[in-house]
Amino acid sequence: MAIELGYTADYHVHLRQDEMMRLVTPTVRQGGVSIAYIMPNLVPPITTLDRVIEYKQELEQLCDSTTFLMTLYLSKDLTPELVEEAAHKKAIRGIKCYPSGVTTNSNAGVDPNDFSQFYPIFEIMQKHGLVLNLHGEKPSISNEEGKDIHVLNAEPEFLPALFKLHKDFPKLKIVLEHCTTKAAVDAIHEINKDLKDGEQPIVVASITAHHLFLIVDDWAGNPLNFCKPVAKLPEDKRALISAATSGKPYFIFGSDSAPHDVHKKAVHTGVCAGVYTQPYAIAYLAEVFDKHGKLDKLKDFVSTFGNSFYEMDESKLRSKQKCWLVEKPNLVADTVAQGGLTVVPFRPGSKLRYAVEWR
Amino acid sequence: MAIELGYTADYHVHLRQDEMMRLVTPTVRQGGVSIAYIMPNLVPPITTLDRVIEYKQELEQLCDSTTFLMTLYLSKDLTPELVEEAAHKKAIRGIKCYPSGVTTNSNAGVDPNDFSQFYPIFEIMQKHGLVLNLHGEKPSISNEEGKDIHVLNAEPEFLPALFKLHKDFPKLKIVLEHCTTKAAVDAIHEINKDLKDGEQPIVVASITAHHLFLIVDDWAGNPLNFCKPVAKLPEDKRALISAATSGKPYFIFGSDSAPHDVHKKAVHTGVCAGVYTQPYAIAYLAEVFDKHGKLDKLKDFVSTFGNSFYEMDESKLRSKQKCWLVEKPNLVADTVAQGGLTVVPFRPGSKLRYAVEWR
Repeated sequence: MAIELGYTADYHVHLRQDEMMRLVTPTVRQGGVSIAYIMPNLVPPITTLDRVIEYKQELEQLCDSTTFLMTLYLSKDLTPELVEEAAHKKAIRGIKCYPSGVTTNSNAGVDPNDFSQFYPIFEIMQKHGLVLNLHGEKPSISNEEGKDIHVLNAEPEFLPALFKLHKDFPKLKIVLEHCTTKAAVDAIHEINKDLKDGEQPIVVASITAHHLFLIVDDWAGNPLNFCKPVAKLPEDKRALISAATSGKPYFIFGSDSAPHDVHKKAVHTGVCAGVYTQPYAIAYLAEVFDKHGKLDKLKDFVSTFGNSFYEMDESKLRSKQKCWLVEKPNLVADTVAQGGLTVVPFRPGSKLRYAVEWR
Repeated sequence: MAIELGYTADYHVHLRQDEMMRLVTPTVRQGGVSIAYIMPNLVPPITTLDRVIEYKQELEQLCDSTTFLMTLYLSKDLTPELVEEAAHKKAIRGIKCYPSGVTTNSNAGVDPNDFSQFYPIFEIMQKHGLVLNLHGEKPSISNEEGKDIHVLNAEPEFLPALFKLHKDFPKLKIVLEHCTTKAAVDAIHEINKDLKDGEQPIVVASITAHHLFLIVDDWAGNPLNFCKPVAKLPEDKRALISAATSGKPYFIFGSDSAPHDVHKKAVHTGVCAGVYTQPYAIAYLAEVFDKHGKLDKLKDFVSTFGNSFYEMDESKLRSKQKCWLVEKPNLVADTVAQGGLTVVPFRPGSKLRYAVEWR
């Protein structure tokens, strides 16, 4: 059995820099992904065009068949002029917005309680069809009088900000990244409730592979499965699986594959957040889709819907090979290592039912 | 300033065995605790009188001023006859019940959905005033049709079993150990709602020191703070603080101090559950009680109520010295080490406002 998945795309990829970049960049292709949408939360964050261009060249040298789509990091360093220029030069496809303090290298991020200072930038983005990628969490606070925010409700508490942004910029393309809750899935359905067949959604959510597997129990005591946003409850996982396999064009694949050296995972305090799924990205998804009898919806999720939203077509690709899903035992390695780095992939040692081929 | 706390007691203590036992047993006294109620979840679990007596002797040799109260591990290996004999010989003060699979060394535990096979044992315990110590969690299950149980609702889901046990054995002394949720606090209030002033409660809850500090965010990515039951939400923490400082005789101190070598905490998968608070037990509590203006309730929580419930008096003590809380800077060590073992205490490197003295 083989299924043609088209020009597969992962619309949320962390390829890091330096040694880690050299280690993980080739694994995008290995995992069955042709188009990778690259996150800008390097150290320092990517906030200039020169750095975007330089970073893209670095990545392209590491794999000649992967198409890299670039982003800027939303921060006070960005100006409407810079974004205008980036759009004209087609240097970026979107801008990533991190609330400060919620995940890896997000310290330079923004206050999610007030996006108004960035409205001039959003205007430019809307005009040029640039995509706003939202890490949809509010930072945690505990408050005797007011509302508590913690890692479990950080995403639902962010949703009003999503609705407001969409209301204020109805033509701005927005992705609620790596959504993890039934509340978020419901919000995306709500926003798209009047969408007609064949019509292009303006607001979509990306869903990772690992959140289709994990609940809170799985990261309690397992740093390997600890990521932000954290995996939530069984009912949330079911809602995510239902959304990813729904055949609705407003749920797209973004792995949020986030490698860390095992020495930053195996610590007794300050574990780095992130699950590394890149080398088996499509195979993990196939496992879940198959289990739920929805393999026929996999191409929509990993190719059709995302590429349509991001307006990708064959002419923009570095390789015209398509990804094929084949039924073939696929053993997840215990480690992916090179030089001084060792990264443990998601579900090390497990046997997957599917593998990928390029044809 | 100095406050006399009486014969302080920690009614939930893990002293382990072998090298770890030798390391941590002296720290009971250092932490300001005179009476330690010892958990039986060794490897193998303590299920015979010989082993109880032997273990107690081992502990007594390691500290001549701590009074050790012993327990058996509820399992199929226990018989009513054994429990009767243990009661007559005053070899144990209670029996600990672990649902299988919920925490460290709980594999030999019981099915919390059906305690009926142990009813003959509970009869004997009730007759002799032995205490039933419940780890009040249901094991996790995910179920498309039925009710999900996960680490966050495992305790609330257990509460009906507590009510049923109390109904079936109204004179059986029960402790809901290390309670972590507002739901559990409310349940204990409910059970004791008709308790008159000066009357002795039959069902109480123990509360740890660390659960007065932690919420879910604090163990997400911090294996040091990972324990079972996991710390829950801010509203739960507030309910625990309110209960511990309430002056109600049905909330007593049990640290659940659970040491693990740092090499079992700093791992990328399979982190051991447990927070080690023993060397600073009373000082951690004082920090919280002070912050909430409730230092005057500390003696109730750490001495009076627990000792009354467990019927402890001066005649049963190995040392007649009392614990005094003194205002004195108290720096939490980064590690507690001996031989080949290193244990990282709770809040390493933090500065506590209070210390303890024996007078």
